[in-house]
Amino acid sequence: MGNEKFIKKSIIKKRISELQAKKFSFQINKIVLPNGHEGEYGSIIHPGAALAVPITNEGKVIILRQYRFAVSRYLLEFPAGTLEIGETPLNSIKREIQEETGYKAKIWDNLGILVPAPGYADEEIHLFLARELSELENIPKGDLDEDIEVLILSPLELDNLIASGEEILDAKTETALFRAKQILESK
Amino acid sequence: MGNEKFIKKSIIKKRISELQAKKFSFQINKIVLPNGHEGEYGSIIHPGAALAVPITNEGKVIILRQYRFAVSRYLLEFPAGTLEIGETPLNSIKREIQEETGYKAKIWDNLGILVPAPGYADEEIHLFLARELSELENIPKGDLDEDIEVLILSPLELDNLIASGEEILDAKTETALFRAKQILESK
Repeated sequence: MGNEKFIKKSIIKKRISELQAKKFSFQINKIVLPNGHEGEYGSIIHPGAALAVPITNEGKVIILRQYRFAVSRYLLEFPAGTLEIGETPLNSIKREIQEETGYKAKIWDNLGILVPAPGYADEEIHLFLARELSELENIPKGDLDEDIEVLILSPLELDNLIASGEEILDAKTETALFRAKQILESK
Repeated sequence: MGNEKFIKKSIIKKRISELQAKKFSFQINKIVLPNGHEGEYGSIIHPGAALAVPITNEGKVIILRQYRFAVSRYLLEFPAGTLEIGETPLNSIKREIQEETGYKAKIWDNLGILVPAPGYADEEIHLFLARELSELENIPKGDLDEDIEVLILSPLELDNLIASGEEILDAKTETALFRAKQILESK
């Protein structure tokens, strides 16, 4: 993604410290930036993630009200998950959408990549539009610690919820919603 | 921001480990989630940030091509910065816009708050629209390690750059651009 001339690796001179969390690690490294400046910088090393904007055959949107301990609140988010080892983004989200919503999708469109927090994380999130949904008879089990409620809303209901300021979306969800609308409205 | 019924603190039972980076810290804590599940979770404790979408009197957008070591590339980003101690988001971005672009703004509109990475960071970014810009005679010095090029583009030039896939925006910039367009186009 993007022109290669804008890609430039920094030189890692020394690992200062590292902590391992469940799905990613945090490292502080002594780094030389491309402009020659040297310093100690901390960042999350993340395997990447994938997200789906699920649209039902009736044109409704499936979105989750999900607890996030880091921000001490429930957020509205599209189904998404961290890539597991050896998993492609599309296969990952095909698994996650079933675990988190109880639906599977037949038609998948690519909505590009998103960089959520380039100041301190290398995570890239792969965004997809998921259509021709059907409900599963048996819902596969996801992560035990997930605290998720599935909402099925018309686009107008979702717009009203957002405009009311009552509920908060995260950046990946807001960006994916805008990109999905551009595709859906251009057809 | 948001209805209080969606706010719920987790209980931190024990600090497992902590690393201090320049502008934030990373902690792994033993936590009890609101649904009773207990586990060890890592996250960044961040002071928050502020961002401006600067629009010139000719209707052009000021955007930065900025190096980000964490993703090993240059990204297009609106001017933004981490809040310093005791600083309001608006005062912070009034300082940052001058340091990063060499412009100051007279009219500021609030574009709401953004949660960039709720899976592993408590950061909230305060978004603003900055108008009635004027060029500074003396540009204040910012962070020494910043590697920034200032671009002044028409909305069409920016749209074409994004559509070309040549350059990559981060999530805060894409979200802020969409919110700014909603305000500018509704007038």
